[in-house]
Amino acid sequence: MIPVFSARHVEAAVSAERAVEAVREAFVAYARGEWSMPPKVYVPAYPAGDFRAMPALGAGHALLKWVTSFPGNPARGLPTVTGLVLLSNASDGSLRAALDAGAVTALRTGAAAVLAAETLGRQDAETAAVIGAGVNGRAAAKTFLARGRSVMLWDVDEQRARAVADELGADLASSREEALAADLLVTVTPGHEILLPEGSLQPGQHVSLMGADGPGKAEIAEQASHNGELVHAVEADAITRTDVTELGSVLAGLAPGRESPDDITSFDSTGLAIQDLAIALAAMERADELDVPTLDL
Amino acid sequence: MIPVFSARHVEAAVSAERAVEAVREAFVAYARGEWSMPPKVYVPAYPAGDFRAMPALGAGHALLKWVTSFPGNPARGLPTVTGLVLLSNASDGSLRAALDAGAVTALRTGAAAVLAAETLGRQDAETAAVIGAGVNGRAAAKTFLARGRSVMLWDVDEQRARAVADELGADLASSREEALAADLLVTVTPGHEILLPEGSLQPGQHVSLMGADGPGKAEIAEQASHNGELVHAVEADAITRTDVTELGSVLAGLAPGRESPDDITSFDSTGLAIQDLAIALAAMERADELDVPTLDL
Repeated sequence: MIPVFSARHVEAAVSAERAVEAVREAFVAYARGEWSMPPKVYVPAYPAGDFRAMPALGAGHALLKWVTSFPGNPARGLPTVTGLVLLSNASDGSLRAALDAGAVTALRTGAAAVLAAETLGRQDAETAAVIGAGVNGRAAAKTFLARGRSVMLWDVDEQRARAVADELGADLASSREEALAADLLVTVTPGHEILLPEGSLQPGQHVSLMGADGPGKAEIAEQASHNGELVHAVEADAITRTDVTELGSVLAGLAPGRESPDDITSFDSTGLAIQDLAIALAAMERADELDVPTLDL
Repeated sequence: MIPVFSARHVEAAVSAERAVEAVREAFVAYARGEWSMPPKVYVPAYPAGDFRAMPALGAGHALLKWVTSFPGNPARGLPTVTGLVLLSNASDGSLRAALDAGAVTALRTGAAAVLAAETLGRQDAETAAVIGAGVNGRAAAKTFLARGRSVMLWDVDEQRARAVADELGADLASSREEALAADLLVTVTPGHEILLPEGSLQPGQHVSLMGADGPGKAEIAEQASHNGELVHAVEADAITRTDVTELGSVLAGLAPGRESPDDITSFDSTGLAIQDLAIALAAMERADELDVPTLDL
């Protein structure tokens, strides 16, 4: 009997607060070499979108997330991100749980965005903002709030931003410029246009770049590649390799993070299956307690 | 509401006969370039076993099989092969079905073994044998019988061979040698020891090598590689590249198969996700008609 967590069950099982802790532990375990992540496979179904098979291994479990990125779906009333997370026991191969991939992805994306902001942002950061009020932007805003921090929301679709802000009890940014000037900035946009032109970040700011995962997409200037924003920035000499480290190394104390209050820090996120594994394991802890439906295979 | 096919439902939905036709169509579609198969990913959990994430794309669908190979599992009363097959709509990304991976794997492995034997074996082949009476060997024997052909079974574990033969109405080979001499031979062994030493195949025989998928395993002499049996045979000059083609090319009429009654033919199978896709699509055709349980995500 395998528990199956629908989106509702994932949200009931793992709070935003718990998700941040789980994702933190995953980053540290990966940085220490305890967890591993074989390369993800893209299954192209362009122009509509693509599927990704994302494996991870850690804490005695193997995980596979089968998930979509279909950017045109919301216009049809369908989710961009959908699919299933499968969690197996790594010592005997048995399937242990299935979880809604959209809910797991939103939870861990919000958690990673806020974790990076808290880790790399200034200690005395006052304002936080999320640009993009879709599923994952909503999750990032919700996570800031769960951590006791007020947050501004902005979206090209003002109605959408307002609806999410009202639902969560977040603030509505008066303009994109106000949001972009926040001390802790999270961007979760499709990346069709550059949100942050060169020189737009101010000393001391932090930005978590959570969107723009796909061919030809970018949220920040000079920086566009299939596998993240950093490659082109390094190629363009905007930053050097020594400026770049992994969030997990900072969290594990293996590398420095912010070194001065005037540093500009950015977290360039590509979705990592270790984050999904962290959420799946956290959900499993509460499978019995919650009335999660089961699958009999 | 997503139909979930347990092993029982997979078997009820797709007969061995239907599986052969479905797998034939998949091989042809792949040979014609209509279906595609991104590389599978291995997730190592050695020494116990490994997980495989196997994607395929075809007929408007994307498929991912998350499946194990844990060879020591049967000794613990657990299956070697277990997991889930996920079928998604390739035009909008929506999940369409989940199916028991062990049942799908057995069905398509049996189908591929017999399809290869029928395609490459002599027209006047009389005897058929299956060596290895595990889950997939049983499926191969069942498929021969479904095609109206009697079949001999042999296994190192005679009790197991007898039980499967009794269940299916197959014959029990009097010895391994008798089985090995069959006109149409299917081997489904773990590949820990060579079953077919050099020179043991007779002119006119066909062998479908269905086991031995893993590091250091082989069913036929000189031929062992992680990705199949052929690489080393070519390296050892036992066969030349021109002797090797794809079953799909033969089925599609793009390449010759057997050219004379005295040819020795062999089908070196590694599991292909296009075969799983063929079975999943065939199962879907009967989801409404059968009372398949559904999953509400």
